[in-house]
Amino acid sequence: MKHELNIWVVGGDLRQAKLAQLLAEDGHTVHTYALGQPQEPVPGLTAEAVLSRADRADCVILPLTVSAGDGLLNTPLASSDYPLAPILDQLSPHQFLCGGRVDPETDRLAQERGLIIHDYFAREELAVANAVPTAEGAVQLAMEHMPITIHGAKVLIIGFGRVGRLTAQRFLALGAKVSIAARKYDQLAWAQAMGFGGEHLDQLKDWLCGYDLIINTVPARVLGQEELEDVNPSCLILDLASKPGGVDLGRAGELGLTVIWALSLPGKVAPVTAGAAIKSTIYNMLREAGL
Amino acid sequence: MKHELNIWVVGGDLRQAKLAQLLAEDGHTVHTYALGQPQEPVPGLTAEAVLSRADRADCVILPLTVSAGDGLLNTPLASSDYPLAPILDQLSPHQFLCGGRVDPETDRLAQERGLIIHDYFAREELAVANAVPTAEGAVQLAMEHMPITIHGAKVLIIGFGRVGRLTAQRFLALGAKVSIAARKYDQLAWAQAMGFGGEHLDQLKDWLCGYDLIINTVPARVLGQEELEDVNPSCLILDLASKPGGVDLGRAGELGLTVIWALSLPGKVAPVTAGAAIKSTIYNMLREAGL
Amino acid sequence: MKHELNIWVVGGDLRQAKLAQLLAEDGHTVHTYALGQPQEPVPGLTAEAVLSRADRADCVILPLTVSAGDGLLNTPLASSDYPLAPILDQLSPHQFLCGGRVDPETDRLAQERGLIIHDYFAREELAVANAVPTAEGAVQLAMEHMPITIHGAKVLIIGFGRVGRLTAQRFLALGAKVSIAARKYDQLAWAQAMGFGGEHLDQLKDWLCGYDLIINTVPARVLGQEELEDVNPSCLILDLASKPGGVDLGRAGELGLTVIWALSLPGKVAPVTAGAAIKSTIYNMLREAGL
Amino acid sequence: MKHELNIWVVGGDLRQAKLAQLLAEDGHTVHTYALGQPQEPVPGLTAEAVLSRADRADCVILPLTVSAGDGLLNTPLASSDYPLAPILDQLSPHQFLCGGRVDPETDRLAQERGLIIHDYFAREELAVANAVPTAEGAVQLAMEHMPITIHGAKVLIIGFGRVGRLTAQRFLALGAKVSIAARKYDQLAWAQAMGFGGEHLDQLKDWLCGYDLIINTVPARVLGQEELEDVNPSCLILDLASKPGGVDLGRAGELGLTVIWALSLPGKVAPVTAGAAIKSTIYNMLREAGL
Repeated sequence: MKHELNIWVVGGDLRQAKLAQLLAEDGHTVHTYALGQPQEPVPGLTAEAVLSRADRADCVILPLTVSAGDGLLNTPLASSDYPLAPILDQLSPHQFLCGGRVDPETDRLAQERGLIIHDYFAREELAVANAVPTAEGAVQLAMEHMPITIHGAKVLIIGFGRVGRLTAQRFLALGAKVSIAARKYDQLAWAQAMGFGGEHLDQLKDWLCGYDLIINTVPARVLGQEELEDVNPSCLILDLASKPGGVDLGRAGELGLTVIWALSLPGKVAPVTAGAAIKSTIYNMLREAGL
Repeated sequence: MKHELNIWVVGGDLRQAKLAQLLAEDGHTVHTYALGQPQEPVPGLTAEAVLSRADRADCVILPLTVSAGDGLLNTPLASSDYPLAPILDQLSPHQFLCGGRVDPETDRLAQERGLIIHDYFAREELAVANAVPTAEGAVQLAMEHMPITIHGAKVLIIGFGRVGRLTAQRFLALGAKVSIAARKYDQLAWAQAMGFGGEHLDQLKDWLCGYDLIINTVPARVLGQEELEDVNPSCLILDLASKPGGVDLGRAGELGLTVIWALSLPGKVAPVTAGAAIKSTIYNMLREAGL
Repeated sequence: MKHELNIWVVGGDLRQAKLAQLLAEDGHTVHTYALGQPQEPVPGLTAEAVLSRADRADCVILPLTVSAGDGLLNTPLASSDYPLAPILDQLSPHQFLCGGRVDPETDRLAQERGLIIHDYFAREELAVANAVPTAEGAVQLAMEHMPITIHGAKVLIIGFGRVGRLTAQRFLALGAKVSIAARKYDQLAWAQAMGFGGEHLDQLKDWLCGYDLIINTVPARVLGQEELEDVNPSCLILDLASKPGGVDLGRAGELGLTVIWALSLPGKVAPVTAGAAIKSTIYNMLREAGL
Repeated sequence: MKHELNIWVVGGDLRQAKLAQLLAEDGHTVHTYALGQPQEPVPGLTAEAVLSRADRADCVILPLTVSAGDGLLNTPLASSDYPLAPILDQLSPHQFLCGGRVDPETDRLAQERGLIIHDYFAREELAVANAVPTAEGAVQLAMEHMPITIHGAKVLIIGFGRVGRLTAQRFLALGAKVSIAARKYDQLAWAQAMGFGGEHLDQLKDWLCGYDLIINTVPARVLGQEELEDVNPSCLILDLASKPGGVDLGRAGELGLTVIWALSLPGKVAPVTAGAAIKSTIYNMLREAGL
């Protein structure tokens, strides 16, 4: 990576604002656009009103998620709307262009202009890094909504991928009795090797009644009618799975169960940490691209 | 302990309500007074409107804290006031009478009637048990008020007694870098043996600037003007110490520092767990008293 | 899986002996051959002198490793040699046949007879389960060979796969300061998410001098001449990598460094646990095969 | 503490040898006597053949234990015997004199000469620091003598003082299922708060049969005939308690149980760490003495 880059951060939420600040603190020249005003002045960081000089950028960073739908850039911190097409018109193929969770429509808009948007959200290292604030968010939600301590609580975690592992580790460390439900034998072996009880996902409905907290991380309907009927009424259910989620919310509501479907926790519970993780991932991408 | 006791739970908050329910679930005959209506019917548990039959009780349990001041019983769940004196008039010295954090005035009222109020809050095992929800409450507050994850945060914990130890253990387990400040050499040795960095409390003011979170557990003015001036403006300060607290709040306010003085966390963050801990302590006291 | 199977355990070391015992305790009819005498009589377990009735078996289990070389079965507990070919002659294709670390020559012998040896050592869940005793063996070796406590020791772990992760977790839990060296960005992200410092493997030679213990888990020459010259003379090096190992042993010797190349730790440090892990894996294989 | 002191280290084992080296590395002028030859030359460290110039010392450090019995200094690294009396004759009351585990006879010899031997082994911070290598030694012994992994093993720890706590913490971290037996309610509350199951010591004999490993830390006969009869034959018993120990060894032998009575583990498993802990304690003592 060249010692100093000219970087534009275009659109986004608090994570992008923090990202811009961290990039400037690392010595890069950073321009922001459609990101509101910086909270505090940072040397090397300028909020721009127009995109005209973005063609000089080495690297242009679009938000996570890039699109707000309807052809608009995702700009929750800005006071007006920013259509994506005219922004892409100002960029050129020789620049390193990246964004998070790039949808097909945005991808098409870029390709029409000869641009490639590298998706930093598709990088494994960012997914792992984001699993940490997600896991902490799950701890926070559990603490806020349960009248008992995590210490001593009986917790079931469904799925043992990135989020499942880091979430399970935290609840165990706080003194909970943690069991894992997973489908694959090697995931169950990992659960056991890391000190957790484990059960096969297929037998789920037979042993749900004993838990104080059930956390789902699998993006598939794992808690349907049959399973929910076995859940203790005082049990809290946290669904961390992305759409379509893992819980039959309608049925849960009829049964009077408390379900919290928590999406996008990293940006909510720890925007500064989430911004730092994006920065670190973009550095890896730039290094691989030879910049 | 006799297999089944006649127990009256008189006054109190959600912890006492839970305590009454748990005692009934253990098979005792339980009467509540000045504790509002039970949330759900429990066999063996009766909410009483008058105290007249409390003279048949084997054990009478007053709240934590017993007195609400001005000679009144502490009855936050009841709709009217209950003076302490007439309640004590109905009790007799052959009963096992206990309460939490008994003040001198209440103690005097009891002695005038030949009664002894055994203080369950003075028991070491309850203090230890309460340190768990206090430590979890500190984690929850930190998560709610910090824009970064606990994972990776630099945390200083002042004091290494009950609350300090269990709080430090939790933050370490969540991935924070935890240092301990303590005065006694053996406490510093404990800190080191349990995997924490440790520094002598007297040198505090020289190394406060690097922390993201400072948690005080010492009930003495350890963070005065000199120390506070060294604290980073983005640092969060949690004071878990009982009155008078450990932070010069006035000076902290002038410096624009965020300080949260969190008292009585167990009853707030985990009333059910706190009620169970009181039950367990009262059982120990009854066992020692030969009941 | 059928409630009761007829199982033959043919050859092997203490792990297979334990495996046979555990299978019998689960209610199966178990015969051993070329495995020495059982230490204690177990109902349902018979040591056989001849293989003639093995054709009645539902499942035949060969050792880990199957072959001792030179066409012989691996039979360290038996008092004589057992050529593989005549053993395979007695088996039939309708039986479930399995073995661990099946070499090409053995595989060829089996195929000539229409047999398939399912390799339980190639199963991911066994590899994970075996990483636990390997990690414990690393702890034991470090304790035995270092004049300092693990607590407070500076430990570098090279590689963050199965063994690297479980080993790192244990040393951290014992109070060591643990860093990870890995090549892939997502492994480094995992290291960080699990609470470890991490550095890219390519920069290894610049920061080796500060460690008390270096543990390699990567089966490639990562500690060559240049790296070894940077290692502190009092540092212990443990190589857990399978052949060819990761350390230039000749150069290490010239430099006077202590290197322990520890292979096959599970069978050595915890044969009972290792036998139980094989049993659990074979059950999964039988279940998938519909038995 | 004065920047540079003149210190004599008189007698002792590997811990004292390491202590002398560390003191010299801190910039003090260090003389050793009756401690054998240093393994490697260290600037500022001199091995002396006679004590005549010890009267110039600011601080004289006797070994842990001071006396070898029969009026002799404890000098396992020296090639001849050193009577204590003539050594004490050479010292003067204005020097800071310290030793470890000072017996009454040695104390009397010192007092006759107007000397006070400050006992560093009686300091709480050294006792805590020594509990770490003791706990690690227990892990090492368990790993060496058990055919199963610590991970998953059922472990009972009797007593929850310094050694009990740090030992329990380590076995839990390694994946064992750990229960605590203690007598005092507050110790049981600590056990529970730190994540362990706990049972009262008086009920011990009713639930011993399920354990793979029993570790005693209480210096009183807690495992007598009745208790031992309930222990599983394959269970390992480690006794870490000082004399008289906690196990009826004769009865255990008759029952065929494996008992390891492990004394003085710190000096054996981690002499360097143990020497550093003594140094740190002596510094605290000197600081309190105003040197």
